[in-house]
Amino acid sequence: MSILVVGSVALDSVETPAGRRERTLGGACTYFATAASLYDRVAMVGVVGDDFPSEHVEFLCSRNVDTCGLQCVEGRTFFWAGRYGADMGDAQTLDTQLNVFADFHPVVPPELCAAEYVFLANIDPDLQLEVLAQVGRPKLIALDSMNYWIESKHAALTRALRAVDVVLLNESEIKQFTGECNVAEAARRVLDLGPRALVIKRGRHGATLMTLGAEGALAPFFVPAYPVERVVDPTGAGDTFAAGFMGYLARAGGHLTLARMRRALVHGAIVASFTIEDFSIDRLRTLTMAQIDVRYAAMRRMTHFEP
Amino acid sequence: MSILVVGSVALDSVETPAGRRERTLGGACTYFATAASLYDRVAMVGVVGDDFPSEHVEFLCSRNVDTCGLQCVEGRTFFWAGRYGADMGDAQTLDTQLNVFADFHPVVPPELCAAEYVFLANIDPDLQLEVLAQVGRPKLIALDSMNYWIESKHAALTRALRAVDVVLLNESEIKQFTGECNVAEAARRVLDLGPRALVIKRGRHGATLMTLGAEGALAPFFVPAYPVERVVDPTGAGDTFAAGFMGYLARAGGHLTLARMRRALVHGAIVASFTIEDFSIDRLRTLTMAQIDVRYAAMRRMTHFEP
Repeated sequence: MSILVVGSVALDSVETPAGRRERTLGGACTYFATAASLYDRVAMVGVVGDDFPSEHVEFLCSRNVDTCGLQCVEGRTFFWAGRYGADMGDAQTLDTQLNVFADFHPVVPPELCAAEYVFLANIDPDLQLEVLAQVGRPKLIALDSMNYWIESKHAALTRALRAVDVVLLNESEIKQFTGECNVAEAARRVLDLGPRALVIKRGRHGATLMTLGAEGALAPFFVPAYPVERVVDPTGAGDTFAAGFMGYLARAGGHLTLARMRRALVHGAIVASFTIEDFSIDRLRTLTMAQIDVRYAAMRRMTHFEP
Repeated sequence: MSILVVGSVALDSVETPAGRRERTLGGACTYFATAASLYDRVAMVGVVGDDFPSEHVEFLCSRNVDTCGLQCVEGRTFFWAGRYGADMGDAQTLDTQLNVFADFHPVVPPELCAAEYVFLANIDPDLQLEVLAQVGRPKLIALDSMNYWIESKHAALTRALRAVDVVLLNESEIKQFTGECNVAEAARRVLDLGPRALVIKRGRHGATLMTLGAEGALAPFFVPAYPVERVVDPTGAGDTFAAGFMGYLARAGGHLTLARMRRALVHGAIVASFTIEDFSIDRLRTLTMAQIDVRYAAMRRMTHFEP
């Protein structure tokens, strides 16, 4: 088992300028697992209620996703409702019902504790630390978070950041976490906690991989957002960005070199670009590695220039 | 004479989080000419009042800038006052006094009418058309504009756009001009008017070169903003971006190939990155081509990735 993801599994009601969907498959763990399954074997740890449609579990199994760590408990599945405006920027949350997710504590089945790549999706940092206490010493641990935890659990989040290799956050979250409005300075403060790399997600403006180069100088690497004809639903873009990033690294294997992380960042941007072309995980259902490769080659044409 | 620029010459009072300057040298024409003079011979067409300090003209002459098209008339020089907030985004205009610029009509001296590269900086599109009527058939004409003209002179601006090779606009200006909120669709509408290329400036998010590729497909090329340790004053970033772009092409000579335009875009981003490191044109006073080359090589490291 190569990649382990821990996070939310949800039913989402989403409204965007392109349409709406009721109680569709959602949650960071689901998005990540579906996308990462294109690259490697994935196992998910999460919780659903007894209202969770069995077809969703069957779909995940059909993708070769190991769901033995997916607890099914009495009650209702985590529910989120949101609306995106014309700019398809940040969603406006209309409703959040934690339901069975409120009492969730991740339990990593023994056979998954040896996972080499671990993604701690956006959940309570105390739960992220619980996962870290259960897994062995993976090759790579990556972590996502959000403004809510930055505000309410700053100390726990800081402990978690100290224990991981790669941190993925939005630009605004990095500024909020560090209290520093200069992004470069904020990035340095995050990297000073210990992570090898920081991925700054900038939505339709792409993403930046921040590492420390020679003599501690900040070495940024930029990737644009892959241009999409028509954005349908931005939900899950960040989680599937992480999936492309981690998935590529897991599949590539070997050491975490800068060259590999750069290629991984491009994969993240590309997988996210497919995700937003349809509601929920629907575009990912038919996505193939060959389609990813086509956009990868196109991304080189869109960014490379001669000396 | 290689590059001709027509636009505003101004005295600016600027306030940014890094400090303030009173009645310092400004104006699109000045910024462009100063930066482009690093690449090639530049001539400027504009107007100043009798209060314009002679040291500024002397400085421009010291840069080999031909100022024979710079009219000096009775009255006061165009004055602009603005303030930038903590995010160093768009300036808040505090005062605009057109003064001698109000009655300005560009007169291109006969010896400059054969200029091969013409930059129509952000002025009334009717004046841009007056310039086009005076120059011969340059190799390349580029044009900048702004929301004010898009709103008040849409028809004249459209005529000007039909007559130029390269258009440089901000993302919001392109949307405003076309009334289209999808940037790709908006870009296509601008290119359909005739220009070979559209440069979409996105401030701290970089810039995109839009051209039409095979079978009329939109072919974007992305360059990030070169990361600067400390932004002092964003004024003139757009004009010096244009200067790096045009300057590189003028110096390179030859046909307007896609590969050359890409390299030119990177030069634009780099020259702009130097401009914002100090007030007014001050950083450009000491800027060298060797320093530009260092950032050019760094930009490749920040954007390139392996297949």
